Amino acid sequence: MRFLPREEKFFALLLSQANIILEAASALLAGAQAGNAHLAECAARITKLEQQGDEVIHDLFLRLNQTFITPLDPEDIHSLASHLDDVLDGIEDAIHRMVAYRVEPIPPEVVELCGIVHACAQSLQSAFDALQRDEKLLQHCIEINRQEEKADHLVRRAVEELFEHERDPIKLIKLKEIYEFLEDTTDRCEDVADVLQNVVVKNS
Amino acid sequence: MRFLPREEKFFALLLSQANIILEAASALLAGAQAGNAHLAECAARITKLEQQGDEVIHDLFLRLNQTFITPLDPEDIHSLASHLDDVLDGIEDAIHRMVAYRVEPIPPEVVELCGIVHACAQSLQSAFDALQRDEKLLQHCIEINRQEEKADHLVRRAVEELFEHERDPIKLIKLKEIYEFLEDTTDRCEDVADVLQNVVVKNS
Amino acid sequence: MRFLPREEKFFALLLSQANIILEAASALLAGAQAGNAHLAECAARITKLEQQGDEVIHDLFLRLNQTFITPLDPEDIHSLASHLDDVLDGIEDAIHRMVAYRVEPIPPEVVELCGIVHACAQSLQSAFDALQRDEKLLQHCIEINRQEEKADHLVRRAVEELFEHERDPIKLIKLKEIYEFLEDTTDRCEDVADVLQNVVVKNS
Repeated sequence: MRFLPREEKFFALLLSQANIILEAASALLAGAQAGNAHLAECAARITKLEQQGDEVIHDLFLRLNQTFITPLDPEDIHSLASHLDDVLDGIEDAIHRMVAYRVEPIPPEVVELCGIVHACAQSLQSAFDALQRDEKLLQHCIEINRQEEKADHLVRRAVEELFEHERDPIKLIKLKEIYEFLEDTTDRCEDVADVLQNVVVKNS
Repeated sequence: MRFLPREEKFFALLLSQANIILEAASALLAGAQAGNAHLAECAARITKLEQQGDEVIHDLFLRLNQTFITPLDPEDIHSLASHLDDVLDGIEDAIHRMVAYRVEPIPPEVVELCGIVHACAQSLQSAFDALQRDEKLLQHCIEINRQEEKADHLVRRAVEELFEHERDPIKLIKLKEIYEFLEDTTDRCEDVADVLQNVVVKNS
Repeated sequence: MRFLPREEKFFALLLSQANIILEAASALLAGAQAGNAHLAECAARITKLEQQGDEVIHDLFLRLNQTFITPLDPEDIHSLASHLDDVLDGIEDAIHRMVAYRVEPIPPEVVELCGIVHACAQSLQSAFDALQRDEKLLQHCIEINRQEEKADHLVRRAVEELFEHERDPIKLIKLKEIYEFLEDTTDRCEDVADVLQNVVVKNS
């Protein structure tokens, strides 16, 4: 007989969220690489993944309200799940702007940024996989910080270039916004990494 | 004789903040509905409400520093009060931009967004009322999440439309910013709801 | 013989971060006052300070992972250090946009905003100095809130003016962004002050 709730389920649910994010980031990168003709179907795929993510988070919050013993502080689980949700929202926001603004051709900087978002998603997945296996995860957090900084510099340079060469203010606003939505998504990955590091510090 | 501080006062002060926010959101909606001719007086009303809000939060922080036994963790009370303050600031920011940019006529999307902010403010008020009465408040938090998502979709659609049809870049920037200030205010309402849910999880 | 870790080192490291921020804010203000001809060298100076800041934060996080007894909750130390890091990043972001956008002449509002960032940095430095000496620091937090509000009003007025008089949309976007980066830096200073106040509440 079991008295304890199957508490380890929380780690599995967080990992599910990270897996969904990685799939969404793959679709984002594939869309950017394939160009405008294929962006819309990638966006539709991401919207479906976002709905799956919502179900996972709903399940997780429900359990959190019903479980007495949790493997981490309940508010840390809540915070990790919310921040993962923000990453998925960020990816969805970004691809929807890309679809809506139909910038032709998609600039190489946008493809590169989607690659960085994808790299962050891979590190998130590795970090939550490590969390579940009770393995070290710090190096994955550090990698996310490194990628975020790379995105930061890329966007700074790309926006400067935009102001130097783009004479159409509406196109400038569009591209600037796409860059910033993608960069913001890497910031949100870093937010997850920050909470994770904090959780590790607290529970070590 | 009483030894315990009148601790329940904290809930009353948080509820006061929520009441002030609801009044400000009502003024915002009324202003948007009435059009540019009446916006300025609504903005003046909201500025006064914001000063009242500052007094409440000042009172609350003072008590927090002087009270040993609080009904919730002191840092949670602090966090709830700060986030409520951010909502009020958001409403004030939004109406001031609307006054300053004098977009004529006020587009129906702006009025609709003000309606969503108002709906969020009503749910916040219900949630803090429930907190004081020790009643369930989860459904109000869920409603705020629902409204925030509605605002998100509305703004996404409205901005896409803007890029498709608005040829004046300065008018485009103005409207985009008003949309985003209003959406940001619903995000801030969701932040309060998130902290509230977290507090409920911790204290259940 | 000493069994306890030299825990007070944490306060010294946080104060180092605050000192570096104050130096960066001084370089920012000096750059804005000297005009475009000298901005680039101030930006280079700030980039160097940012790297020093990264080393301090790296040292601090390392110690945090190795120390059992800390003078504050480890997650509060983590949060203070992260938020201080955000301030430094904000200053670096702001000056790099100023360099890249080469707005000639630098408007007086930009210089004034740099002055406010500098005032916030001075109050941060005083606050962390007080934290180390175990002295009262609330008044420095209040001063930061006051400065942040001043920046808020200044930016609101400056952006309104921009929309009224600037006919070149690209120049408008540039200036609006510089104003907002500087204002955002004061918001980040306020975030530090909020965490500090919260820490004081918790440990009083």
